[in-house]
Amino acid sequence: MTVPSVEERLGSAADSHRRMWSELLPVGRYDASGGYRRHAWTPADAECRAWFAEQAAARGLAYEVDRNGNQWAWYGDPAGEGAIVTGSHLDSVPDGGAYDGPLGVVSSFAALDALRERGFQPVRPLAITNFVDEEGARFGVACVGSRLTAGVLTRDQAYELRDAAGVRLPDAMEAAGQDPSALGKDTERLSRVAAYVELHVEQGRFLAETPHPVGVASAIWPHGRWRFDFHGEANHAGTTRLQDRRDPMLSYADTVLTAREKAALHGALATFGKVSVEPNGTNAIASLVRGWLDSRAADEATLTALVQEIEAAARERAERDGVRADVVRESYTPVVDFDAPLRDRLAACLGAGTPARRPTTTPAGAPSGHCPILPTGAGHDAGILSAVIPTAMLFVRNPTGVSHSPSEYAGEADCLAGTAALADVLEELVCRP
Amino acid sequence: MTVPSVEERLGSAADSHRRMWSELLPVGRYDASGGYRRHAWTPADAECRAWFAEQAAARGLAYEVDRNGNQWAWYGDPAGEGAIVTGSHLDSVPDGGAYDGPLGVVSSFAALDALRERGFQPVRPLAITNFVDEEGARFGVACVGSRLTAGVLTRDQAYELRDAAGVRLPDAMEAAGQDPSALGKDTERLSRVAAYVELHVEQGRFLAETPHPVGVASAIWPHGRWRFDFHGEANHAGTTRLQDRRDPMLSYADTVLTAREKAALHGALATFGKVSVEPNGTNAIASLVRGWLDSRAADEATLTALVQEIEAAARERAERDGVRADVVRESYTPVVDFDAPLRDRLAACLGAGTPARRPTTTPAGAPSGHCPILPTGAGHDAGILSAVIPTAMLFVRNPTGVSHSPSEYAGEADCLAGTAALADVLEELVCRP
Repeated sequence: MTVPSVEERLGSAADSHRRMWSELLPVGRYDASGGYRRHAWTPADAECRAWFAEQAAARGLAYEVDRNGNQWAWYGDPAGEGAIVTGSHLDSVPDGGAYDGPLGVVSSFAALDALRERGFQPVRPLAITNFVDEEGARFGVACVGSRLTAGVLTRDQAYELRDAAGVRLPDAMEAAGQDPSALGKDTERLSRVAAYVELHVEQGRFLAETPHPVGVASAIWPHGRWRFDFHGEANHAGTTRLQDRRDPMLSYADTVLTAREKAALHGALATFGKVSVEPNGTNAIASLVRGWLDSRAADEATLTALVQEIEAAARERAERDGVRADVVRESYTPVVDFDAPLRDRLAACLGAGTPARRPTTTPAGAPSGHCPILPTGAGHDAGILSAVIPTAMLFVRNPTGVSHSPSEYAGEADCLAGTAALADVLEELVCRP
Repeated sequence: MTVPSVEERLGSAADSHRRMWSELLPVGRYDASGGYRRHAWTPADAECRAWFAEQAAARGLAYEVDRNGNQWAWYGDPAGEGAIVTGSHLDSVPDGGAYDGPLGVVSSFAALDALRERGFQPVRPLAITNFVDEEGARFGVACVGSRLTAGVLTRDQAYELRDAAGVRLPDAMEAAGQDPSALGKDTERLSRVAAYVELHVEQGRFLAETPHPVGVASAIWPHGRWRFDFHGEANHAGTTRLQDRRDPMLSYADTVLTAREKAALHGALATFGKVSVEPNGTNAIASLVRGWLDSRAADEATLTALVQEIEAAARERAERDGVRADVVRESYTPVVDFDAPLRDRLAACLGAGTPARRPTTTPAGAPSGHCPILPTGAGHDAGILSAVIPTAMLFVRNPTGVSHSPSEYAGEADCLAGTAALADVLEELVCRP
């Protein structure tokens, strides 16, 4: 049996994929960094959303925006039961890459094009979505669109969110022409969805060490964010004797290095990527250093133990520095195990592999032609929605593993292989009774 | 012989001192911190300057603003030769204390009041000054007013200075009603000044460990500011394996701790009090961490050796982290040895002590009634002007040593003792032929 090539499986949808990329690439690009700044409800986001609506119109799809601002393009009856939904998001982190989010939306439209060219016979509705504000870059909470829809974030909580300039989320929506008054859980809509499948660029190097361009997700690592506030005493940097200081920068620095060491010991991740200092003057000892710890591990027990160890070390060092350490857990997401029957159906459709929990493990001897199953440390709308409907994810190989950076990249052949895999999976899901 | 008390030496000038404090204390106070935000050419600064002009008018002093925006109040002929000048500054660091600067200006007016009450017979002019923008909090360069006047900062350099909002210094001056067109070296004015004496709250605990409320300055430690840029690679904090990271936060943290250790070994000071991070997102490994090192030592050889050791350690750690370290010296001020004859004349006037180079040394067995002579790590207008005219400084005891902080403090009795000492010193300088 000869396996058809990716280009054969996609037909003219490969060109459709390339055309959509060339349309999206200039939108919201920040010249100084080469990265993207497509934050929710900004003009760059509006341009992305207009592009989505155009793609729906060009294909004759029924287009709608739900109560939470998520965009939907329907092939088949939007009111039908047992719908299969695919898509991702179009917003970005500050100076993010081109692929994180948009690859899933572009691949969804291209996969539909391929299926129509194949003359597929769906027995249920198929929808393509753009979930709003996945990255949370503007209001500080990730996956706002899917969290609201799933009821994980309440309307009242969303109304309290503010951006760095103090603009409230509902006001930002309204300024962008979107009515915020009906924000909230969308049980009725989700009751008509049988499954959500999200294709995403891999944000690590699991697939890069395999011959496979595409893999199926097993789980999302539990992860959280902790704020470490180190309170010291402002003083003159040029005159205060070392022994008279209560310098919180020392406690912070020690905690940064400790977090890295302990993460390595646990085979987990711990990162301080955001800091805020008061008064932040060159000739003033800081009065307050505030650092945010992002930490993730394969299981919740490991994550809890790791963060407890970092916190204990921070408090010990702070005491030695005459500094007060306050630690606040700002967010926490338990482990997400994707729906097992759906995952297995996708893996069977694409060629089965062996589940592996740790992305640091190279899948030893995975036979070529099979489909790897891999976990991820990153949160996604599919992870949020997994609490209320069956969800699954496909990952496309990332040769450098770099993401949330202007240098994020995936090869065109791998992106097209991802689109072909998504088309195969959607055909399996929408054409069987 | 009975030594007259401070209150006896000051007469009604003690009340004048208290009244001026009560007038200045509310100006530019930031309620959230209890500290002051009196940055150059802001409304709070304008209020301080209006207060200075009122003090001059209330005393019938000739008032003028020089080409660089410094304020002058003259007792005697402003065009006369061999003038004795005293004063300080009224601006503050962000959330600074009440005493740093204003204590010198208030004490100067009160000292003049005391001298007039004593019926002093000056043989040369006496001027009180407020040097503009001593702290450099807004435009990043300290002592702008005295640097321009001394010709250490050129007009062209001053025109290039910008604040955080991008406002240029000349535009800020103009917006505050001050003509910037004549900025620059003021040789003619300085040629008529015989000496500048600045009283300042001590910014350390040298005098706090003595029975003396007032001391005379010997020197300003050499000091400088170095910017450490650690360039790594932005990446996803939740998915990037530890071994694949190039995380500049680690290099920065290690450098902070190294700087402290090496400063202790050298008996010197090294502080990282200001940091800037890109992209500064909680779930992104930083691409750039920029930290500013403030370092000072008793002599230039020690300072040079210390900074070289910190820089070498930073580069070594950066290389291990896959990070590039760039180190730029942003400013450097050599050691200032105050004019020896003037210093000795002040010390003789106040009661002689033994010079001590290190503020960390407790002056052993200094006899009560004598005047300690001490160095400082902090820059001052008197230090800048020492390059072109004889200058001297008096320090007033600071019980906690805290400065550049809302909790900076000096006791009223010590402040009045400082004013009495300044009056004695000015009498000595302006009444002798």
